[in-house]
Amino acid sequence: MTPGDLERLSQAELRGEIEALTAAYVHALDDADLERWPDFFTEDCVYKVIPRENYENGLPLAIWYCQGRGMLQDRVTAIRETQLFAPRALRHITGNILVQGREDGVLRTVTNYAVYESTLDRASEVFNVGRYLDRIVVADGRLKFAEKLCVFDTSVIPTSLIHPI
Amino acid sequence: MTPGDLERLSQAELRGEIEALTAAYVHALDDADLERWPDFFTEDCVYKVIPRENYENGLPLAIWYCQGRGMLQDRVTAIRETQLFAPRALRHITGNILVQGREDGVLRTVTNYAVYESTLDRASEVFNVGRYLDRIVVADGRLKFAEKLCVFDTSVIPTSLIHPI
Amino acid sequence: MTPGDLERLSQAELRGEIEALTAAYVHALDDADLERWPDFFTEDCVYKVIPRENYENGLPLAIWYCQGRGMLQDRVTAIRETQLFAPRALRHITGNILVQGREDGVLRTVTNYAVYESTLDRASEVFNVGRYLDRIVVADGRLKFAEKLCVFDTSVIPTSLIHPI
Repeated sequence: MTPGDLERLSQAELRGEIEALTAAYVHALDDADLERWPDFFTEDCVYKVIPRENYENGLPLAIWYCQGRGMLQDRVTAIRETQLFAPRALRHITGNILVQGREDGVLRTVTNYAVYESTLDRASEVFNVGRYLDRIVVADGRLKFAEKLCVFDTSVIPTSLIHPI
Repeated sequence: MTPGDLERLSQAELRGEIEALTAAYVHALDDADLERWPDFFTEDCVYKVIPRENYENGLPLAIWYCQGRGMLQDRVTAIRETQLFAPRALRHITGNILVQGREDGVLRTVTNYAVYESTLDRASEVFNVGRYLDRIVVADGRLKFAEKLCVFDTSVIPTSLIHPI
Repeated sequence: MTPGDLERLSQAELRGEIEALTAAYVHALDDADLERWPDFFTEDCVYKVIPRENYENGLPLAIWYCQGRGMLQDRVTAIRETQLFAPRALRHITGNILVQGREDGVLRTVTNYAVYESTLDRASEVFNVGRYLDRIVVADGRLKFAEKLCVFDTSVIPTSLIHPI
């Protein structure tokens, strides 16, 4: 894929490509395949996890803030070195994708997500619900996130937010 | 878009258009952008929120019943004038869409939804789960709902069903 | 649809067809239209429901194991003859679909799902969360499951797993 494809692809083709990116992203996380996670982002990306209240009031506080793929990779290393937490599985369900714009080689999309957590001895539970606000570009021959804001709805900060969303 | 497009579009194009409509609809609700809500419907639309048990037994009782876009607009005004409830966020996750038919300029679709509720001091919770039974037409140059039935699964009527589903 | 279509269809067309299959499958289950369930599978299909822990450790234990459409039909008959359980509704929400491969007339896909349960006197609850690992082929002129593994995340086996997932 080349940057020019963003202009050339039909609406249906583009939607299919964004859905494929979304599905690949959440399955990498759900498979706990964290080493693949930074590859979904551009070199100079922005990744944030923000409570909805802060986002809507323009407050800068983010629970996670990474600038550049190097910081994502550092984060993965840190997670791998501190495996103190109980084994659990995460599962992302993403809804239908809203394509807000396609200008200057950048796609702006919004996608609702619900993440479920399952531990060995408890039934599956809702863990985190919110929306992805994404800026997607073509880099290294495929779609990548130049910016991903994970705006979650509750003001209760999950204590176990160890893995990316 | 013109009514003839419904016949001309390929399956994949049509599916993309319905997904785009669905995503736009739920994000307007999740953004609490209620003034935009009536615009997703035709002038003489039908909008109902119905417990599954009533729907399957052919009982007329609906929790919400609106006939015509004017009633939707009245409903929005009423909501805006009675903001007594605690601040909370709703989030809709919609599943893959079943296109049941495309005849005489009307698309019939079924879409499962789950709505989550988040308040300031509690974790996100499942609020309402069910399916949209939609009749979609081309009006004012784009896809709109001529009929939207929100059939929810539980018989426990949510006391806080203040906003549309 | 013919087996050759799997090669000929564009990515977007193929994605649309898989989404349509997924939506039809879950709505048959959610409508409790169990007699239609075996028709989504090939004659010599494999259908399993497996806890994630067993699946990832290569353990053979499945909660459900059916080989061949005949076993699916037997299962439906058994369910119909033992309607001792309380009435309840299931609702499947499926996320964006990951197409992993398209080789030798077989599509390999992964799709996250969340199933909600609603009874007459309780609010809707999360019932089962996991992923479908599917092998899809063209049979009888349409897409069918040659293999469907329902790998659910929790190790707590749902006592009420009476209906297929």
